[in-house]
Amino acid sequence: MSEAHASRRTRLRERCTAAGAAAALVSRPANIRYLTGWSPPGAALLLAPGAEVLVHARRGFTEPGEGRRPDDLRPVELAEPGADPAVAAAALAPELGADSLAVEEHHLTVARHRAIRAAVPGLDLADLGQAVEHLRLVKDEDEIACLRIAAEITDQALGELLESILVGRTERHLALELERRLVDHGADGPAFPTYVGAGPHSGAARHVPTDRRVEEGDFLTVCLGACYRGYRCEVGRTFVIGAAPASWQIDLYDLVFQAQRAGREALAPGVECRAVDRAARQMLERAGHADAVGASTGHGVGLEIDEDPRLSPSAMGKLDACVPVTVEPGVHFPGRGGVRIDDTLVVRPAADGGPELLTITTKELLAL
Amino acid sequence: MSEAHASRRTRLRERCTAAGAAAALVSRPANIRYLTGWSPPGAALLLAPGAEVLVHARRGFTEPGEGRRPDDLRPVELAEPGADPAVAAAALAPELGADSLAVEEHHLTVARHRAIRAAVPGLDLADLGQAVEHLRLVKDEDEIACLRIAAEITDQALGELLESILVGRTERHLALELERRLVDHGADGPAFPTYVGAGPHSGAARHVPTDRRVEEGDFLTVCLGACYRGYRCEVGRTFVIGAAPASWQIDLYDLVFQAQRAGREALAPGVECRAVDRAARQMLERAGHADAVGASTGHGVGLEIDEDPRLSPSAMGKLDACVPVTVEPGVHFPGRGGVRIDDTLVVRPAADGGPELLTITTKELLAL
Repeated sequence: MSEAHASRRTRLRERCTAAGAAAALVSRPANIRYLTGWSPPGAALLLAPGAEVLVHARRGFTEPGEGRRPDDLRPVELAEPGADPAVAAAALAPELGADSLAVEEHHLTVARHRAIRAAVPGLDLADLGQAVEHLRLVKDEDEIACLRIAAEITDQALGELLESILVGRTERHLALELERRLVDHGADGPAFPTYVGAGPHSGAARHVPTDRRVEEGDFLTVCLGACYRGYRCEVGRTFVIGAAPASWQIDLYDLVFQAQRAGREALAPGVECRAVDRAARQMLERAGHADAVGASTGHGVGLEIDEDPRLSPSAMGKLDACVPVTVEPGVHFPGRGGVRIDDTLVVRPAADGGPELLTITTKELLAL
Repeated sequence: MSEAHASRRTRLRERCTAAGAAAALVSRPANIRYLTGWSPPGAALLLAPGAEVLVHARRGFTEPGEGRRPDDLRPVELAEPGADPAVAAAALAPELGADSLAVEEHHLTVARHRAIRAAVPGLDLADLGQAVEHLRLVKDEDEIACLRIAAEITDQALGELLESILVGRTERHLALELERRLVDHGADGPAFPTYVGAGPHSGAARHVPTDRRVEEGDFLTVCLGACYRGYRCEVGRTFVIGAAPASWQIDLYDLVFQAQRAGREALAPGVECRAVDRAARQMLERAGHADAVGASTGHGVGLEIDEDPRLSPSAMGKLDACVPVTVEPGVHFPGRGGVRIDDTLVVRPAADGGPELLTITTKELLAL
């Protein structure tokens, strides 16, 4: 991968030069991971005319999930505890031939930005903006391969849970078991805190598991994902607990299923992000559930679980090929629960068979 | 507790007025939790002459571990997805009688700070600095009671693990089991990612569990903590796996034990933080392990697991009574492992019996 990382850095340097900055300072961890394959906590990456330098705190050894230490970057270990790698990296810019430096103003705090200014008064500071996030939008096939493995792991963990007894167990225990199974199957760890919501907690966009036990007749919503080599995917399913779903449960599930399918089928290169949201959302609104639908019906995934593009009514921009997104419409009625169905897919042109579904766990309504 | 929260806000407003700012905007989650008892993700707290307002995104229901929604604050729910609560809160300042606003420049990004400036051009922005962090330094007895319960839960979880078979299990599985037990015993969740390090991974200051299995003759270092009502504690122990420890293991353990005891015994009101670090560190340095000791030998705990004061050679300031800290010296030899012993204690005057040990798991060298 290190050639891929080097070429990503080259593309960033080109954007940076075009914007009139001699060097770039990247501090956001996911962006450093994208550009180097490695993300030790609190590191800073300096791309200067003279050299590419990765500054980080001294540490024992690289930890799992952090990726591999790159061999084509100059590493600088900070011995002094509490020293800010971003400030140390910026201080190297002048001697590496940079009189101006573009920094990530959406990540650096005001205090750290001031510390850089104070440490390197001569340096002209600019805003790198979301330049790296924009590079990250369209994934290469190596990245998609990692997402595919993350999805396989996630489907395996969920499939195993469905074979076990669920009634009487708490949301917290089911979530912990799912996270253990993700690790068993080779995940770096969970891509995000696992959501298990039973009864009144079902169907929400986000829910921290509680001690609520799974009961007969509940809707049970589970949303989990594996992180594999830094890449994060997401799957969400809603089940009915007990022999026979109630008719309102069958109707509500079918409605969300249709809405989620409409969202999936709307995915194509060149389609507006808001159009995908509308495809899923309008079916739920027509059924009178406008208030029960969340703010968005999907989002991009990659090195972060919630990245661009957004699939929401106010989202700008269009989809590209090779952009992985979730499609996860749902309805949640406070106090009563609801249904959410969530898949991770990769946008592909129709000529390539259309959207590639990464999470293949069945979406039939299962009565467990 | 809501009276306690209100009086904390009053103290902050007094500091703020003394510093010449008419209002304060608090954005750091742990600080909002401290001042209100509640911390919904991405909230912002405005303390203005006219009113105290907590701005947060619309949500279904309060989640466990978030605390309780305060009833003595004006809540403002943002309907628009992606809207920044800090910007919305700042925009309320003028109509609430504030012409100047102190913000947390160590938490707000440059981009969010600029957004506030653009949204409320007339408002004079100042730096609140670490005013809330300073208020948080000395804990009241309600806070210490939460830490005491967190420590009890932590000791229980660790004690149960020691009764089970460890050989052949991976670091990851032991960590997941410990986190499940923390939850079983009533924790909101783990206070931080549980550290389990076997063999070459033992003794490090921080280590993400791997698939390394526990083997006969290993040192095994475990560091975990419960979060209870937002308050986080920490315990760390190192064990020997197998019937009989090797003599080098006994010697190294005894050395770290002596160093950790020296650190604990140095805790008293008025003592310099660096003096506590020195007490523990110098015993390890005299034994020739200067390079194997980490950057710090302890830190404050509370609503965050790693807060002021720092116990390190460069730390400024002195300890006060009712300040909870960890004392956690250790030595780690890359490739070989080491020993770390970690307790959470509350600084108390000698008249009150000296430092109060919250984590009471035995520090004898156990061969498991």
